Amino acid sequence: MGKDHGGDEIKAVLILSGGLDSTTLLYKLLADGYQVEALTFDYGQRHKKEIECARKISALIGVPHQVVDLSAITPLLGESALLGGKEVPACHYTEEAAKQTIVPNRNMIMLSIAVGYAEARKISEVYYAAHAGDWAIYPDCRKSFIDAMEVAVRLATAWNLVELKAPFAGISKADIVRIGLGLGVPYERTWSCYQGGEKPCGVCPTCIERAEAFEINIAKDPAVRPEE
Amino acid sequence: MGKDHGGDEIKAVLILSGGLDSTTLLYKLLADGYQVEALTFDYGQRHKKEIECARKISALIGVPHQVVDLSAITPLLGESALLGGKEVPACHYTEEAAKQTIVPNRNMIMLSIAVGYAEARKISEVYYAAHAGDWAIYPDCRKSFIDAMEVAVRLATAWNLVELKAPFAGISKADIVRIGLGLGVPYERTWSCYQGGEKPCGVCPTCIERAEAFEINIAKDPAVRPEE
Repeated sequence: MGKDHGGDEIKAVLILSGGLDSTTLLYKLLADGYQVEALTFDYGQRHKKEIECARKISALIGVPHQVVDLSAITPLLGESALLGGKEVPACHYTEEAAKQTIVPNRNMIMLSIAVGYAEARKISEVYYAAHAGDWAIYPDCRKSFIDAMEVAVRLATAWNLVELKAPFAGISKADIVRIGLGLGVPYERTWSCYQGGEKPCGVCPTCIERAEAFEINIAKDPAVRPEE
Repeated sequence: MGKDHGGDEIKAVLILSGGLDSTTLLYKLLADGYQVEALTFDYGQRHKKEIECARKISALIGVPHQVVDLSAITPLLGESALLGGKEVPACHYTEEAAKQTIVPNRNMIMLSIAVGYAEARKISEVYYAAHAGDWAIYPDCRKSFIDAMEVAVRLATAWNLVELKAPFAGISKADIVRIGLGLGVPYERTWSCYQGGEKPCGVCPTCIERAEAFEINIAKDPAVRPEE
């Protein structure tokens, strides 16, 4: 069942948020035969629901998982709706909404730590689930940024080469859901909503984006329970 | 006295280790009229002498200074002589000695946090003191890595552009000492030695490199006190 590289299982580090995209990538990597170690970053999110989802999903499928505590760093990064410093916008993704929810340089910080983690363990691949959907309005999710980071990472790790992989960079969230439905990803165990309520709010940018991705697949999001 | 950009003082974030190179860069930026904020990273160094030097020098010249605590991240980065996990080599810089003292992906981690810090404050320049001397044997100090990071940083910060600057990337440590002697840098207040003794050990790679840099300038390192 291991990925066939001369019989050895290939190890990979995955940045797992507990949301839809990275959980789908986790299942895809396992299906491809990778031996995965998952890292979740606690950067002082407004709520801990995603982190709890990441922890539970990893336990469910027996993947080693660590939460990286960035609480000492987050205060340096100013205010963001994701950190509770501003109101979460209730609308579709727009540049304005994205600016409310950006955490400065978050992706580069998480990637650089994940790469150091991999390098220390001689693991040669780091995966993350940036994709070509609405998230691409964030500068540090764009393909051009990912490409530049791939180069910088390769150069920084010349002694224990680590490669950055973003296999969803060219596809949409609807495509990701299609892949995940095929792999049996338990989407009811993932969390996307920016709010930390009992159930997803349905009106924040990521709830709207997620609903559309299921709609395009003519599927029901199992995380959204009908009103009683 | 401010750098002349239409009368405004230009702000810059500087990664200040408390060593010779970054302290010289601090004095150079101030001489060039920059308003500097200094960040020092505590990544669990074997000793805190450099950090203390950075703190005291910043206080001495009235530069805002913060120590960024990476103690939650360092355990993820494995063992290094700099973290106390291995013996500090007593020799000139060699690839072997450098491998003993590397902290995986340290520079990318520090740079990405410094960039996030700058972006949150709309400061458009981040300086660090990588140079073309012996340190260039570390992959993440090489010019090719610095160039790749400059590109990645520019792309990641498209909404509040931050530029990475490594003005010493093309010069040697002896050149840096020459600049610093001209600027009156108080080198007796800087710390380079990998060991945390009462005075520099004189035999670790960075002590040897530092001594050579002063020698080339036919100068005395004021941090090295003669035997009583």
